Amino acid sequence: MPIIRVEMFEGRDRDQKRKIISEVTDGFCRATGASPESVNVIITDVSQDEWGRGGIAFADRDKS
Amino acid sequence: MPIIRVEMFEGRDRDQKRKIISEVTDGFCRATGASPESVNVIITDVSQDEWGRGGIAFADRDKS
Amino acid sequence: MPIIRVEMFEGRDRDQKRKIISEVTDGFCRATGASPESVNVIITDVSQDEWGRGGIAFADRDKS
Amino acid sequence: MPIIRVEMFEGRDRDQKRKIISEVTDGFCRATGASPESVNVIITDVSQDEWGRGGIAFADRDKS
Amino acid sequence: MPIIRVEMFEGRDRDQKRKIISEVTDGFCRATGASPESVNVIITDVSQDEWGRGGIAFADRDKS
Amino acid sequence: MPIIRVEMFEGRDRDQKRKIISEVTDGFCRATGASPESVNVIITDVSQDEWGRGGIAFADRDKS
Repeated sequence: MPIIRVEMFEGRDRDQKRKIISEVTDGFCRATGASPESVNVIITDVSQDEWGRGGIAFADRDKS
Repeated sequence: MPIIRVEMFEGRDRDQKRKIISEVTDGFCRATGASPESVNVIITDVSQDEWGRGGIAFADRDKS
Repeated sequence: MPIIRVEMFEGRDRDQKRKIISEVTDGFCRATGASPESVNVIITDVSQDEWGRGGIAFADRDKS
Repeated sequence: MPIIRVEMFEGRDRDQKRKIISEVTDGFCRATGASPESVNVIITDVSQDEWGRGGIAFADRDKS
Repeated sequence: MPIIRVEMFEGRDRDQKRKIISEVTDGFCRATGASPESVNVIITDVSQDEWGRGGIAFADRDKS
Repeated sequence: MPIIRVEMFEGRDRDQKRKIISEVTDGFCRATGASPESVNVIITDVSQDEWGRGGIAFADRDKS
């Protein structure tokens, strides 16, 4: 019953999200022998205005 | 000060969310004797494109 | 496939956690009509040293 | 490599979020001596329809 | 800067966790072309007393 | 009602956690004008065996 969450910058399209769900599930199952059907993956998009490092939003870091 | 988070597929309307907040709080308080006013509930909608099982997004599982 | 997480102060025993899992699941299903078997509940204990409000850990608030 | 998440009511604008990222990072670094560049901050807006206390959504509490 | 969290039943040893970190990172990078060095993975063990489905802790489901 | 979560490597003692709760709360309130009493902070320690980057647990990265 593992649950895998992926937080990443918004902007990836539906096909890329399909691949992430598939490949991350495969990776977990390769590592553990778990059945893919037991693995949940949830993707969360985060805006670059709402994610910062070094005290600066990535939206502003990228501009510099 | 318990915090309860509910992640579920998007699509439930405001009245259903009201009921979820109310009933989940009641359930926790019945189990523990906690005061309802101490209980926070946060609901997060997840798109079926962004939630997968068995390596496949629920949006695609439901189509098959 | 809802996932419900409960964060609360550590100290409740196994029987209380059983009741929380049961009652919170029931509450969600009463509100939504979901099947209990689709509902996951995960409980996380938090130490009062690691949870603060008003800038003060609950471990210290309770002492005053 | 600390990760700091902030969940708050939606409605704050981009400049307020910039300040939150900056000030929360500074606060963590003052407390720990960590380098700001090691600190990630992620902000999540929550609707008052989806956050409740006492079994009632804040959207409805505020109306009363 | 993706962050991937894995919640799973406790009991896997350090070598299995190493493999999970490695394989899940590889899976994400295969899907997206991201650099592995940008990917953080955090594993959280959950006790079967604290994870339930169908209103019953897995610790009790497994006994039946 | 903001909730701030801090995930960091385990090993900081109780006094450092007190300072983190205090300083992060102050930082948030300086940025937003919120009342400290409305701010919850929850700290989660993560083992370096359970946090990886670049596909390698920090426990192993630090050895090299």
